[in-house]
Amino acid sequence: MSEINWSESEKKGAKEAFDKAYEREINSLIEEVRQKASNISEIDQLWGLHDFLSAKRHEIDGKYDYRYSELIFVFARLLKEGWVAREELKVLEGDKLAKISALARM
Amino acid sequence: MSEINWSESEKKGAKEAFDKAYEREINSLIEEVRQKASNISEIDQLWGLHDFLSAKRHEIDGKYDYRYSELIFVFARLLKEGWVAREELKVLEGDKLAKISALARM
Repeated sequence: MSEINWSESEKKGAKEAFDKAYEREINSLIEEVRQKASNISEIDQLWGLHDFLSAKRHEIDGKYDYRYSELIFVFARLLKEGWVAREELKVLEGDKLAKISALARM
Repeated sequence: MSEINWSESEKKGAKEAFDKAYEREINSLIEEVRQKASNISEIDQLWGLHDFLSAKRHEIDGKYDYRYSELIFVFARLLKEGWVAREELKVLEGDKLAKISALARM
């Protein structure tokens, strides 16, 4: 699915939902890191936090891919993980939403 | 300088000073990370913390090298950086201490 398959209102809605999901996940991650850091008392826990951040950075860099060819898969994952609500994807036309929902259930 | 140049009491004293320096630096680092983490409010700061931890982990892995062939250099660096006190190296014989002091001033 390429850019031509997305209407202007879909693009606008998709961008909003995408940005909100990113903000939610980042805020949640920041909170988790603050929590983890406040509980560190040993070197192993410190390097554990480093490993955790390495993994999360890699995951988030890969996950938030705003190419129209990827967006269905991106939203399916975000829906499955709870970072975007189905409600927020209502602006998308029925076929896209159905694909996203089906993929999210896999 | 190899192991045979170190007396038993020097080895004991060196190990104690080494361990204390490590403990001090780690505790200081843990405190710094807790502080940094508590101030994070944006993603860039989060990845900044990740970069900081990557660099520190690499630095500390390389720095605390307890081979007798390296120990003079290790202590010189720890002395320079303030993780070990000259007082704690008094157990070393004069020539070693002089070398450490000279290197620490470089």
